[in-house]
Amino acid sequence: MTATTQTPDSTAGAPVVPSNGVLRPLGSGEVRLTEGFWARRQQVNRTATLPHALRWMRKLGWIDNFSQAAEDRRGVDRRGREFSDSEVYKLIEAMSWEAGRTRGEDLAREIDLLAKTVAGAQDRDGYLHTAFGGPRQRPRYSDLAWGHELYCMGFLIQAAVAGARTGQAAALLPAARSAADHICEAFGPRGNPGICGHPEIELALVELARVTGSQRYLDQAALFLERRGRRSLPLDHFGSAYFSDDIPVREATVFRGHAVRALYLACGAVDVAVETGDAELLQTVAGQFDRTLASRTYLTGGMGSHHADESFGDDFVLPADRAYSETCAGVAAAMLAWRLLLATGEDRYAEVIERVLFNVVATAISDDGQSFFYANTLHQRTLPRTAPTESEELTVGGGQRAAWREVSCCLPNIARLLAGLNSWVATVDDAGLRIHQYAGADIDTRLADGRRVAVRMSTNYPDDGVVQIRVTKTAPGPWRLKLRRPSWAPLVNVTVNGEPSPSASLYREFATGDLITLELPMKPRFTYPDPRIDAIRGCVAVELGPLVLCAESPGGELDLNTVTVDPATEPGVAGGLSVSGSAMNPTDEPWPYPVATPAPARAPIRIPLTPYHRWARSGPSIMRVWLPAQETRPPMDQGVEQ
Amino acid sequence: MTATTQTPDSTAGAPVVPSNGVLRPLGSGEVRLTEGFWARRQQVNRTATLPHALRWMRKLGWIDNFSQAAEDRRGVDRRGREFSDSEVYKLIEAMSWEAGRTRGEDLAREIDLLAKTVAGAQDRDGYLHTAFGGPRQRPRYSDLAWGHELYCMGFLIQAAVAGARTGQAAALLPAARSAADHICEAFGPRGNPGICGHPEIELALVELARVTGSQRYLDQAALFLERRGRRSLPLDHFGSAYFSDDIPVREATVFRGHAVRALYLACGAVDVAVETGDAELLQTVAGQFDRTLASRTYLTGGMGSHHADESFGDDFVLPADRAYSETCAGVAAAMLAWRLLLATGEDRYAEVIERVLFNVVATAISDDGQSFFYANTLHQRTLPRTAPTESEELTVGGGQRAAWREVSCCLPNIARLLAGLNSWVATVDDAGLRIHQYAGADIDTRLADGRRVAVRMSTNYPDDGVVQIRVTKTAPGPWRLKLRRPSWAPLVNVTVNGEPSPSASLYREFATGDLITLELPMKPRFTYPDPRIDAIRGCVAVELGPLVLCAESPGGELDLNTVTVDPATEPGVAGGLSVSGSAMNPTDEPWPYPVATPAPARAPIRIPLTPYHRWARSGPSIMRVWLPAQETRPPMDQGVEQ
Repeated sequence: MTATTQTPDSTAGAPVVPSNGVLRPLGSGEVRLTEGFWARRQQVNRTATLPHALRWMRKLGWIDNFSQAAEDRRGVDRRGREFSDSEVYKLIEAMSWEAGRTRGEDLAREIDLLAKTVAGAQDRDGYLHTAFGGPRQRPRYSDLAWGHELYCMGFLIQAAVAGARTGQAAALLPAARSAADHICEAFGPRGNPGICGHPEIELALVELARVTGSQRYLDQAALFLERRGRRSLPLDHFGSAYFSDDIPVREATVFRGHAVRALYLACGAVDVAVETGDAELLQTVAGQFDRTLASRTYLTGGMGSHHADESFGDDFVLPADRAYSETCAGVAAAMLAWRLLLATGEDRYAEVIERVLFNVVATAISDDGQSFFYANTLHQRTLPRTAPTESEELTVGGGQRAAWREVSCCLPNIARLLAGLNSWVATVDDAGLRIHQYAGADIDTRLADGRRVAVRMSTNYPDDGVVQIRVTKTAPGPWRLKLRRPSWAPLVNVTVNGEPSPSASLYREFATGDLITLELPMKPRFTYPDPRIDAIRGCVAVELGPLVLCAESPGGELDLNTVTVDPATEPGVAGGLSVSGSAMNPTDEPWPYPVATPAPARAPIRIPLTPYHRWARSGPSIMRVWLPAQETRPPMDQGVEQ
Repeated sequence: MTATTQTPDSTAGAPVVPSNGVLRPLGSGEVRLTEGFWARRQQVNRTATLPHALRWMRKLGWIDNFSQAAEDRRGVDRRGREFSDSEVYKLIEAMSWEAGRTRGEDLAREIDLLAKTVAGAQDRDGYLHTAFGGPRQRPRYSDLAWGHELYCMGFLIQAAVAGARTGQAAALLPAARSAADHICEAFGPRGNPGICGHPEIELALVELARVTGSQRYLDQAALFLERRGRRSLPLDHFGSAYFSDDIPVREATVFRGHAVRALYLACGAVDVAVETGDAELLQTVAGQFDRTLASRTYLTGGMGSHHADESFGDDFVLPADRAYSETCAGVAAAMLAWRLLLATGEDRYAEVIERVLFNVVATAISDDGQSFFYANTLHQRTLPRTAPTESEELTVGGGQRAAWREVSCCLPNIARLLAGLNSWVATVDDAGLRIHQYAGADIDTRLADGRRVAVRMSTNYPDDGVVQIRVTKTAPGPWRLKLRRPSWAPLVNVTVNGEPSPSASLYREFATGDLITLELPMKPRFTYPDPRIDAIRGCVAVELGPLVLCAESPGGELDLNTVTVDPATEPGVAGGLSVSGSAMNPTDEPWPYPVATPAPARAPIRIPLTPYHRWARSGPSIMRVWLPAQETRPPMDQGVEQ
């Protein structure tokens, strides 16, 4: 790893601020989303999602739980699940990124009120949880596997870190330090040797160490990390892999068990590795992520195929119609990829982030920002029921975004990601400026050597592939502007002031007003699954730039369960995205496993396609990402060699 | 329906005794398993499974819960889940069928002790449940959705019915009547309008009505049935379909939601229809079963594809590697098919029973009868961990049979089925004797007109397809011996004393000593999936007679995740069952969704096959039923017509 020089306030408002790494993240004063896809999402997040989440948390008593605890009425009438505290913390974190960037005074006041409410519930020794430890409640740490106590305090810490980096929520940092001190005491080398069933405290403690400079928090995070994987949590029917407690972090080769648990743990492991200079640990976790991407990840970047235990399945168990792909796992995968990107500078992690953002995060949240998917199926076979009532709990994965859920981890998780998303667009490395995500943005920062440079990025991406970057400020001497080249774009067209450049990595002396243009090939392409993914054998998908496309049938008029596509014919773009294929009319037999069967009659059709993230936005629909192919062999497949 | 004349004691020991129907079931005095596959299973059930289950229920305190309740210590130290009472009842039922048939006095004494323990826990008003209603417990019926109170009392009633039909467990019938009277009072037309979250009480009340002649119980069962489907149970995240409470029984077209719940409810509906002469209701439920078989059933006859809610999925959602196919759903499907067989006389139901018996029930239970699968996957991708400890809860569907589980509904369910399985072999109809299952058995019964006939059936089925039936007793005049012709055997060879018969339905005057021989074609055959079953697109299975075969690799030496088979080459039988195919060596790519990919190198191999029910019996193994095919088109498929 190459250390980068960092000035403290340059990263103000940045969600993750490692003290080491190839890349330096930019703070909210350095990069701003100005227009286009993500600027719009961030706007909806601010104006709609944050108030929506706050309204629901008030309505359901999750905030009142803190007030009750402060009044010493803890446990009298507590509402919500044992992890509801964490949702309030996530919301405060999201509001802090937002308020820090936009300097909204109303928001700042709201945050302060929430922070004081939360801090008021803290026990004198620093412990803070509304569901344990009160006179009428289960004792502290009596259920490490399922109690989510350290998990919740982890999110408290993250909210405090966000507050510290944005000048918000002044009451939270002392509360978080006090909680962290309590945890170091209670779970330190001579304390309770346990770990929390749901990892999260690890990454939170490292971030708190970064903010406070306190080694103690980093040490405790490292201790939690080393304790894990030794089967110390009580066994239940999900097994110890569910908790990533089956194999020590340093010995595992792939993520397994509960996807969000595994991914949060990995984030903490990267954070510890980066802060302690543990290159071996960093490499181990990167290897686990690699293997997970290679064999346990959906085309969308979604992770976790099991509904029952919200877990990764075995390698290549990736059913489309039972995809779980929890929204939070998408957020967590992006968090991990971001950490690995900062640590290594490898742009393939930025591509993972882009895939998850456009195909999981953008899918999960509704246009109005006020409802969300918890699970993200890749195949909706039947029309969901219309008009769910607000009080009715929707079936997870039932094809409808829900305004809220009893378990509503996903919405505030998206909210905090979107509120800080501007920071994920670009970084600074030793040679200059790196652009990781293509979005309308203003970037104004200092290079590693202190020179101040600024660029304005304009683009309709991903609606088209043209990205224009105007140098609006520069300094004498050359520096490098490095643009990410996606793996799906083997050839990209880069020009500087109209002159072709052989590379997307431009090292030169820039002048104010220079215009760099990148053209990415936005042509729909067929994608084939690894032959070991049984559930989508014989299918193809269509992608367009960073977007996974899907066939959608609003109202279910076209039965997508009985179509096949012809990958020999290129997808059409004129008159709307589509593929050519056929509709079959299979006979309903009394038993669906015949010894031999006549081919069902087929009629040629065109199947309209749409970006996956757009599905189910205009009423109930059926949808599928993977389409059965008439010819299933990829172009270069030459058949069986015997 | 045609009413059949029945003498009361002829059906003694028969598990289900409708007062109407095309077929009359035979009692334990009329049909006995003598040798072969099912006689051995019944023997292991008697000598090993019953004592094993009793040992575990004692060890876990499930029986002690009753003693505590009797001592007015109910709820002080109750152990087990809220449905543990039902397991004790199921065990008593199993022991009763067993003791009734074998006249074992030790077993009879054991049953009496258990029956007295159970009956001692009953409240004065008839209510009996060890988890509710005590001074330290939740009030009666305070959680109809999840409390399993009526469910448990339903199994109490079934145990009492078994006792009454076998002369066992004398204490139970009064207890069951008292419980049923309480239920009729509490939930009658002017009582609590609720229903139990888990159906079971419906079929139990009808069986009790059959045993006692009390119309009241039948009326109450019918009332519960009519109340269901009106969304009266509180909604939770599984939705009302989970409880079959989304659509009234008479309006539904297919089984949905929790598979065991749906199937038990359907059994109760058939029982009510039969006893009330409601042909329309009978036809409705038969239609639901038809559609479920056509689109929501695994090749094995297993039902329920969701792990999370143990439910049927949408039509054609039948993933092999995430098959749930709960053992209890198999038992329940067989129970339903048996009821429909008796009511209609249609032998296709007997074929469903055979499929479930050989491929779900026989699979679930270990050779020693002391461990079982809860879920029955059709594809085990990875080697399960070896040597689970007895105290360790195994992951459901993790490829290992477990000695016991916290939720151990399946083992006693199999036990009661096997203990009474002899009754499922043959029936009597208006014309004579019907043979439904091919197994070594002695049958000695009276025809509908009172003539006494007896036959001895000898066979190694399904090891081979030869079934010999010797007439050992007959009476003057013709009668019909009707042998079931399986749908997979379009041509069967039937001879009477060596003379070919054109039909498997023999109407003639038989003489003592007549030998009827049936030869079923036992040649392995390829089976293809309906093209709408996405998860097994491009795969074939191999079946042999009633047996689903699987490829199994003990120790995982052959990687079954990377083989393909060639359905153009017939499966081999010499030197062991096998298919020819190839092994591929796919390249591990960093991302498993390439735009184009070279064909992996393949080498020809032979893939050994074994009956699915034999898998995982000699140590950890990997296994798959559905095999990717080199050529995926069924023989008669002539390709795309455009």
